[in-house]
Amino acid sequence: MRKKFAIAIHGGAGTILRSLMTAEKEAAYTNGLTAAIEAGNSILEIGGSSLDAVEAAVKSMEDFPLFNAGRGAVFTNKGTHEMDASIMDGNTLEAGAVSGISLAKNPISLARAVKEKSGHVFLCGKEAEAFGKTVGIAFQDESYFYTAERYKQWQDVKDSDIYQLDHSDKTETGERKFGTVGAVALDINGNIAAATSTGGMTNKRFGRIGDSPIIGAGTYANNKTCAISCTGHGEFFIRAVVAYDISCLMEYKGYSLKQACDYVVKDKLVKFGGEGGLIAIDALGNIELPFNSEGMYRAWSVVGETSNVKIYED
Amino acid sequence: MRKKFAIAIHGGAGTILRSLMTAEKEAAYTNGLTAAIEAGNSILEIGGSSLDAVEAAVKSMEDFPLFNAGRGAVFTNKGTHEMDASIMDGNTLEAGAVSGISLAKNPISLARAVKEKSGHVFLCGKEAEAFGKTVGIAFQDESYFYTAERYKQWQDVKDSDIYQLDHSDKTETGERKFGTVGAVALDINGNIAAATSTGGMTNKRFGRIGDSPIIGAGTYANNKTCAISCTGHGEFFIRAVVAYDISCLMEYKGYSLKQACDYVVKDKLVKFGGEGGLIAIDALGNIELPFNSEGMYRAWSVVGETSNVKIYED
Repeated sequence: MRKKFAIAIHGGAGTILRSLMTAEKEAAYTNGLTAAIEAGNSILEIGGSSLDAVEAAVKSMEDFPLFNAGRGAVFTNKGTHEMDASIMDGNTLEAGAVSGISLAKNPISLARAVKEKSGHVFLCGKEAEAFGKTVGIAFQDESYFYTAERYKQWQDVKDSDIYQLDHSDKTETGERKFGTVGAVALDINGNIAAATSTGGMTNKRFGRIGDSPIIGAGTYANNKTCAISCTGHGEFFIRAVVAYDISCLMEYKGYSLKQACDYVVKDKLVKFGGEGGLIAIDALGNIELPFNSEGMYRAWSVVGETSNVKIYED
Repeated sequence: MRKKFAIAIHGGAGTILRSLMTAEKEAAYTNGLTAAIEAGNSILEIGGSSLDAVEAAVKSMEDFPLFNAGRGAVFTNKGTHEMDASIMDGNTLEAGAVSGISLAKNPISLARAVKEKSGHVFLCGKEAEAFGKTVGIAFQDESYFYTAERYKQWQDVKDSDIYQLDHSDKTETGERKFGTVGAVALDINGNIAAATSTGGMTNKRFGRIGDSPIIGAGTYANNKTCAISCTGHGEFFIRAVVAYDISCLMEYKGYSLKQACDYVVKDKLVKFGGEGGLIAIDALGNIELPFNSEGMYRAWSVVGETSNVKIYED
């Protein structure tokens, strides 16, 4: 039986070790995830659309400086920010995506504007921001995107060729994170949607684009199957077309959401070398949050049934 | 039984009407397609890889000014060129892609360098070109990409909001083309590969990216299933994840290459509103070249069996 409405979010996957986490930091992440779930739920419970809910949840995480998206986006090799985002409506299969965004406050809202107002699906760079200005998207100046922690992470590696996944202090601590945020939701009309937003990799060069803005790789939604938002080593997720793969396993092979998620994330991607995870919802409101890394910041809520925030495997 | 080696190419699909084609222009297109097939075949017949063959065939079309890719790329709203390309190896599932390229002589070779030398899959814009300079990719100045016909096409629409698919003179003649080039091939070792390159849309704005550089949408290759290069209205091809859809229909639903191609191009995409076509090869060397528009510049060759160049439906 279909759930009334439901939502799941992630704030990135990776080697998130309890031993490296302070109680304060864990509480801060938990608060950030809880706020995002509430932002989405507050829309779903008044009969709003899954599209509005995933945008609101992702905006909440973009505004929260601990997540690598929006305000907390990591620094590139040039000391700038290059953010990517995408959104897809499972009812219409309409989609919007942006890449190389520097100053839009909420890249996910720019992606949504691309979907609804540009006549296109995917816009890139300064010109995508120029489009955003023509449709009233909010912008900030550079200082808004400055956080002391991200700046230090960049300073630690900026004179090297090392590009870091999110805010990894890999060399020092063994920590390795894929900083991305995302949301999937089902609304009371039975429509599902997905949204993903990221700040990319610390010290990244050459205008690298990961899976987050790629429809089919990092984001996909189709009422017939599922809505998916991924977080992980983007190059592998692009090559494996992860989000659409799960949809195809359901549509063409008759897999359940759980079967498709488990096979792709815990078998196929592991053999392929693709570390990370994803969140998934189907049109009945079933939720899966599989990952093959040590942890994934995640939370979910099915109205009247369950609500949870988790970071580690257990 | 597996063919020894085979190759197929396209030079774009659309409303290509015999009534609008001069004998001279038809001969020129035929020459361009023939040269590209020969460029690919000359590699395959000495035992070269399908990856080398598709790169060579696409380079040949990028160098040929009548195709909307490389030298013949259309003008953007700013009078510049923004080219996209991608390549994928069906044996390793390794892939490379670039977007927003202005001055690289052969964007497909830059995409291949991304695959092999960047540690990434997808690089964008000026920074992707900066990467290309570090690995010895050939560049040209602006004048190389000037062709009188493309310039006129841009002048005709540049003060409007109209963006044109390739070099359409739609308003005047009803012509409407999706200018992209691509190649798929099977080599004597049984490996398949795909490559796609485009100059985008005349007068396009806002850094629009179509399906050509998107792995899974415009390009995909996997020895287990097929190699695909698409040409069409890119926004629809992204939302339908066309190239990977064909692969999934084969892998998960047991469709033949022909069944999968016919279903996606002539049924699913038609209902979805996605005009265009694609070229496809499987690991046995079967070739399909379906399109739902009025024509597609295309050619194919299966060693010892068949070789053909076609433009219209018949």
